[in-house]
Amino acid sequence: MAGTDHAKEAHIDAGGPVIVLVEPQMGENIGAAARAMWNFGLRRMRLVAPRDGWPNPAAVAMASGAASLIDEAQVFESTAMATADCNLIYATTARPREMTKRVLTPEAAMAEASAMGGRTAIVFGPERAGLQNSDVALAQAIVSVPVNPAFASLNLAQSVLLMAYEWRRQHDPGAAERIEGEHTLPAAGASVDALCAHLVAELDAAGFFYPDHKRPVMTASLENLIRRAAFTEQDVRTLFGVIRALSGDPPRRG
Amino acid sequence: MAGTDHAKEAHIDAGGPVIVLVEPQMGENIGAAARAMWNFGLRRMRLVAPRDGWPNPAAVAMASGAASLIDEAQVFESTAMATADCNLIYATTARPREMTKRVLTPEAAMAEASAMGGRTAIVFGPERAGLQNSDVALAQAIVSVPVNPAFASLNLAQSVLLMAYEWRRQHDPGAAERIEGEHTLPAAGASVDALCAHLVAELDAAGFFYPDHKRPVMTASLENLIRRAAFTEQDVRTLFGVIRALSGDPPRRG
Repeated sequence: MAGTDHAKEAHIDAGGPVIVLVEPQMGENIGAAARAMWNFGLRRMRLVAPRDGWPNPAAVAMASGAASLIDEAQVFESTAMATADCNLIYATTARPREMTKRVLTPEAAMAEASAMGGRTAIVFGPERAGLQNSDVALAQAIVSVPVNPAFASLNLAQSVLLMAYEWRRQHDPGAAERIEGEHTLPAAGASVDALCAHLVAELDAAGFFYPDHKRPVMTASLENLIRRAAFTEQDVRTLFGVIRALSGDPPRRG
Repeated sequence: MAGTDHAKEAHIDAGGPVIVLVEPQMGENIGAAARAMWNFGLRRMRLVAPRDGWPNPAAVAMASGAASLIDEAQVFESTAMATADCNLIYATTARPREMTKRVLTPEAAMAEASAMGGRTAIVFGPERAGLQNSDVALAQAIVSVPVNPAFASLNLAQSVLLMAYEWRRQHDPGAAERIEGEHTLPAAGASVDALCAHLVAELDAAGFFYPDHKRPVMTASLENLIRRAAFTEQDVRTLFGVIRALSGDPPRRG
């Protein structure tokens, strides 16, 4: 029932890029890369000649909740073999190479991959050393994270994380903004009108608007302040209570 | 000469958000957060009641190249004090809260912060537990990374990394795509015309275009393939050599 197991994430990984780790050294880093992938719904990991062989218990231990990606990881002898079935191949590098190649931001690369369809591979080099030029040459383009030139120290899992994040952002952007909570809609105009009227009446009673010729400007400014806040109906009820309390009216019970 | 020391990154941190870590536990995680910040040019770190006191040698050791952020970190007794001078306060949380609050993606939040100006704080809770509701209440809005609902396991430094990445992306997006290498311009039209003509002539000589009535379609298709590739002048010279070699012409020397 593998189909059922993966049903929940199927909409995320559909066409999601293959993450290819070339000659990764520490098993812990392979596990951390798996976690980074799965945080953003990517699950296809390929390894080229992992230094400490395969399977690697340290990778499984580090991956914890993402251990199924480690179980399903495929191992290849060369980067060419690991990307042989991929239509779009990106090489991740931090430093410039002596070759003519397009260099994309993670955002641009994942937008391109989303638009292009087919199978995409994102290829990561070994910790510290990075990809060899012969591996970079296999790629159609380079992806480079625009880090601080004074301090570029992304580790393998962080690099994978940013690519996976950008993939998910392109592929399943969701709502940029939503309102959380029970009473989420701003209050109806009439409620806010009533609140404003009540506040102005109480302030009038308290002699707040002085001198009198400034009253129109002051009330307009107050109303603007209140309307801009986009209070909910519950907020409006609360504020009625606040105004009553401040103005010494007895609280309404029941 | 602090101004000189920081001149290089001044254009990045200008208005960059303050990163507030509330009750962080492991010094190593504080150090890793500093690295994540500095990777994307943020340098203002504030700590609220760090569990193991301050200074913390483990934080300095982990921060390595970003240790100056640790040296300059400010320590506060409460989240309210740490954010007292901030105009825009975002609370990062992974789980829903029982309060009415805007919830933004990192992208939307950093776009808003960039547009708004003023001093922005991004507040992160302790490892595992996350922010208390009383700290979330201080914020104008919540920022939540849209992770895989089946696996949400970002650690503190990764959460900081993604916010810092989004800040830099909004603030200093740079070129989404560029071409790297010495001979970066596509070759002039005349060079490509000459290449196409040479290839077609050699293929004619080899009897490639058969049957004859298909010749126009076949040459158009070949030319299209070549023009689409956007070869550089160097590429064109190389391909002339390739064609000559394949067609048995003696190589041109000197």
